[in-house]
Amino acid sequence: VARATPPGEFELIEAFTRALPLVGEGVVLGPGDDAALLQPPLGEELVATVDAVEEGVHFDGRFTPGDVGWKSLAVNLSDLAAMGARPLWALVALGVPTGTPPSRLAGVARGLGACARAHRVTVAGGNVTRAPGLALTVTVFGSVPTGTALRRDGARIGDAVLVSGTLGEAALGLEQGAAPRLARRQRRPEPRLALGQALRGIASAAIDVSDGLVQDLGHLCTASRVGASLRIAELPLSPAYLKATAGRPDPWGPALSGGEDYELCVTVPLARVRDALAAAARVGTPLSVIGTVTRLSGVQVARPDGGHHPVARGHDHLAAVRRLTSRRRAVRRQPTR
Amino acid sequence: VARATPPGEFELIEAFTRALPLVGEGVVLGPGDDAALLQPPLGEELVATVDAVEEGVHFDGRFTPGDVGWKSLAVNLSDLAAMGARPLWALVALGVPTGTPPSRLAGVARGLGACARAHRVTVAGGNVTRAPGLALTVTVFGSVPTGTALRRDGARIGDAVLVSGTLGEAALGLEQGAAPRLARRQRRPEPRLALGQALRGIASAAIDVSDGLVQDLGHLCTASRVGASLRIAELPLSPAYLKATAGRPDPWGPALSGGEDYELCVTVPLARVRDALAAAARVGTPLSVIGTVTRLSGVQVARPDGGHHPVARGHDHLAAVRRLTSRRRAVRRQPTR
Repeated sequence: VARATPPGEFELIEAFTRALPLVGEGVVLGPGDDAALLQPPLGEELVATVDAVEEGVHFDGRFTPGDVGWKSLAVNLSDLAAMGARPLWALVALGVPTGTPPSRLAGVARGLGACARAHRVTVAGGNVTRAPGLALTVTVFGSVPTGTALRRDGARIGDAVLVSGTLGEAALGLEQGAAPRLARRQRRPEPRLALGQALRGIASAAIDVSDGLVQDLGHLCTASRVGASLRIAELPLSPAYLKATAGRPDPWGPALSGGEDYELCVTVPLARVRDALAAAARVGTPLSVIGTVTRLSGVQVARPDGGHHPVARGHDHLAAVRRLTSRRRAVRRQPTR
Repeated sequence: VARATPPGEFELIEAFTRALPLVGEGVVLGPGDDAALLQPPLGEELVATVDAVEEGVHFDGRFTPGDVGWKSLAVNLSDLAAMGARPLWALVALGVPTGTPPSRLAGVARGLGACARAHRVTVAGGNVTRAPGLALTVTVFGSVPTGTALRRDGARIGDAVLVSGTLGEAALGLEQGAAPRLARRQRRPEPRLALGQALRGIASAAIDVSDGLVQDLGHLCTASRVGASLRIAELPLSPAYLKATAGRPDPWGPALSGGEDYELCVTVPLARVRDALAAAARVGTPLSVIGTVTRLSGVQVARPDGGHHPVARGHDHLAAVRRLTSRRRAVRRQPTR
């Protein structure tokens, strides 16, 4: 267990940090001390979450180092988007296998830095440790005006269910010979931060689609003690999706159960649906009405002919990340239902 | 890379979370949503840091699961202590190898929960992922009244150097047949939170001793652009330390270079040393004057006969955690010195 500092570690860390934005709004003291000193915006609540990406679990050799860095931050920013938060800061805990070339770490940092700059996030600190496989555990901080966060538990019966962008492409992006657009959705997800903020005060509940639409909407429904009915014909599907799934026995599978699209699924009172669509248009993000919040528990999927579409479970592509959060809520709620 | 949810994961997460304190001051929304919602104390700055403990790097079979859980939080709280911060919240990212028995995770959670309760920390969220070895990456948040944080860069020439508690025991606790007190220092470190807060407004700079006294004081000196001279005869050593090192060629080695004591090393203007000692006495933490801040760069160690004591480098027991933070500061500073 005892070990000396491996040679080259200094260089590894330098290679990693050179590409990161390290100063920004509210950072009183960034990297260089025992901890970061941060000034939260006045009148705002802090929004904080952590997620890890692990070699062999969340990414493999098809991901460039830059993809890994981008995705490690983007999946966290997606959680902030689902809360309606504006991103502020990140802490990056890096696990590095012995013998990792500095160029690989520099590539990871460039991807992470590109995502941080694109979304105005400052890397305020972090740490580096030896690990069996490359791993990035990223903590992100954002903020919302007090009391305005989008939560999972506000959906009401009769609300509309909406989803941003298009579905199922990230899961298809894992398949052999996937089209470049699909592979990019898997490797460089775009968190819907502008949309999340635009829907504060409009949406009644929100969640990001990381484990698959039906599963994540199910979490939202459980938290809100409602159910939902989705209309399969209204799922937003891209031309690339339609091409890739043409002729399959279940062409809707990836859209309903495929993970990692990092779109937002929100519920909106019927009287505010026009406002929601207008807000989405203002920030340039597609938003589609796909269903209704119901009294029944669980998520039902309706075919155009009115029949129920059975939803396969376990299309959990790369979705090893299980939030204590969502699971615990489910655990606590079950005995009381 | 694609994988289905492994059976039993639900139970693992339940086993882990049951032992944790999940509600507390300032937690608007804890586990159960996309992110935690936190209300920072008014008029305070946030202090945030992240550290990981990895199986085979930071702990081995001599650590009970409870030790691992305790230590994963304690090492982070030590960073808050070094900033003078009051702890508030933690996010816990857990990496779990396939086949981990729920009882092991429950043990980790009990140790983590015991440390959290002892120091009034609320676990506000987290996530669980598959990983090659058991790993806990913990992010902690604390706060200080704005402008009062203890930093590394405030030491001035002529200040006294002080250290809390006793040194070198954690490193000796790794040795075969170590006395129970020494093993406990290694496995259940006690962050000096009360002392850190008591020294706000008194200490000119502070750091926690995680990589060894000479190395960490060296970081502080680099950040403050000063040097330090330590008087070897004044290092605080316990009877257990003296017994374990009796007859060794370098009986001071573990005290000077052994890592993971998680004591605080602080600098204090000479006129405030009495105040510092009184503040330490009020919170019941031993504090010893061990040296002086000097103009020379680097840390010198003086023997009672006035000669220089050479300090071995590389006694980096279990100290794989390298903060981006301290390294980056060192990197940036070098060209300008």
